[in-house]
Amino acid sequence: MGISYEQADKALKAAIAKAQDLDLKMNIAIVDAGANLTAFARMDGAWLGSVDIAIRKARTARFFDMPTGDLGQASQPGGPLYNIEHSNGGLITFPGGIPIKNGAGEIIGAIGVSGSTVENDHTVAEAGLKALT
Amino acid sequence: MGISYEQADKALKAAIAKAQDLDLKMNIAIVDAGANLTAFARMDGAWLGSVDIAIRKARTARFFDMPTGDLGQASQPGGPLYNIEHSNGGLITFPGGIPIKNGAGEIIGAIGVSGSTVENDHTVAEAGLKALT
Amino acid sequence: MGISYEQADKALKAAIAKAQDLDLKMNIAIVDAGANLTAFARMDGAWLGSVDIAIRKARTARFFDMPTGDLGQASQPGGPLYNIEHSNGGLITFPGGIPIKNGAGEIIGAIGVSGSTVENDHTVAEAGLKALT
Amino acid sequence: MGISYEQADKALKAAIAKAQDLDLKMNIAIVDAGANLTAFARMDGAWLGSVDIAIRKARTARFFDMPTGDLGQASQPGGPLYNIEHSNGGLITFPGGIPIKNGAGEIIGAIGVSGSTVENDHTVAEAGLKALT
Repeated sequence: MGISYEQADKALKAAIAKAQDLDLKMNIAIVDAGANLTAFARMDGAWLGSVDIAIRKARTARFFDMPTGDLGQASQPGGPLYNIEHSNGGLITFPGGIPIKNGAGEIIGAIGVSGSTVENDHTVAEAGLKALT
Repeated sequence: MGISYEQADKALKAAIAKAQDLDLKMNIAIVDAGANLTAFARMDGAWLGSVDIAIRKARTARFFDMPTGDLGQASQPGGPLYNIEHSNGGLITFPGGIPIKNGAGEIIGAIGVSGSTVENDHTVAEAGLKALT
Repeated sequence: MGISYEQADKALKAAIAKAQDLDLKMNIAIVDAGANLTAFARMDGAWLGSVDIAIRKARTARFFDMPTGDLGQASQPGGPLYNIEHSNGGLITFPGGIPIKNGAGEIIGAIGVSGSTVENDHTVAEAGLKALT
Repeated sequence: MGISYEQADKALKAAIAKAQDLDLKMNIAIVDAGANLTAFARMDGAWLGSVDIAIRKARTARFFDMPTGDLGQASQPGGPLYNIEHSNGGLITFPGGIPIKNGAGEIIGAIGVSGSTVENDHTVAEAGLKALT
């Protein structure tokens, strides 16, 4: 369904290379169009708690077909999707998860990155995406 | 992996002594470098609901290699890690959990304390840490 | 409720001493009369998967006020309590969990041991009990 | 803790190569010494339900430092560890999970494979191990 393992591994390796450039230790997860885990890497010394977060970011991005940070804008107190994080066994709605599209603009999966600031997480996720374009 | 039981028990007993000095009833948990429970004590009369919180604080501190209160600063509404508590089966991000380092500065585990104000929880956790230095 | 931390720690240390005599690496949990975790120790190198099992054995023994192995007799296929393990978030019904009684014969908690054969687990649990008589 | 990502990816790729030789579609997971996910791959078309099983097999193998199939021998009805699967949030005890050791014989992680018969799962897991010797 959607992304192939070959593509997923390519995105994973590009994200790792970007993290190494930035001297960061990241957990990186790729899910397919069905939001199922397809590829995962924990760089040596990356936060243990970020294994789960990277996977949840990738799933969240595919669940709603938008970057996780966008969902987080709407899930704040008073927001329209307040505490949506309680659904689906637990969502992560801060930046670091991004849908992956094919050349036709169809969503074929998502990438989730966790291990640093949310800005760095997002940057590394984008590097993974870029490898597939 | 990391802290030994002998060390963990020493930290536990030092935390208990501090709690007794302050006339507090605490739950105290120590996890190892893999975030696995290594030692635990519930002082007589300590809150039942704090058993789970003490363990989660210790795990959270090791998951992200920082005091739990630091993480809680970033997980507030509008903060960069809003609702990170939904990951890893449930995090606790208020003070009372602190990573434990060895002489070389490597993290070998973490301590989590729960049963009083978060300030007291943190103070008792620090007393546990101090016993290992 | 029931066992004090002082008693629980005494039982824990006696169980550890017995495990050392037998050259075993055990996880040992003590719960109180309310089946709440009161004391826990993981000996260096004990199985990681036995942390959870030791706690479940102690809880199971107090949940039904009998040694876990007795319950396991009845939970076999065709038995009267077939698959009772599905209750209470997951029970463990093989030997290694034993209720703890006071001098008056009242149950004040339970001990659970995991890390070796079920026979050794039960032997080490009994050594913990014996320290309180 | 234990296996590096480089080693884990090497084992992953060797397992994939073996699966391709046998014309199988597998999910393959590697955990570190702390039983934390370190690398994962789902080959195109592999069973969706095997994502979780591959991860649980790897974790189970490290939790008890033995091949999952060995544990399954003891967890049968009437066996000493009947229904141990209810612990640790759910174990998988049929073949396909194997601990990974370093040259000194120390366990540094585990591999779990799911997607075919348990014999094939085990064979592919062994191919992953072999890449590290």
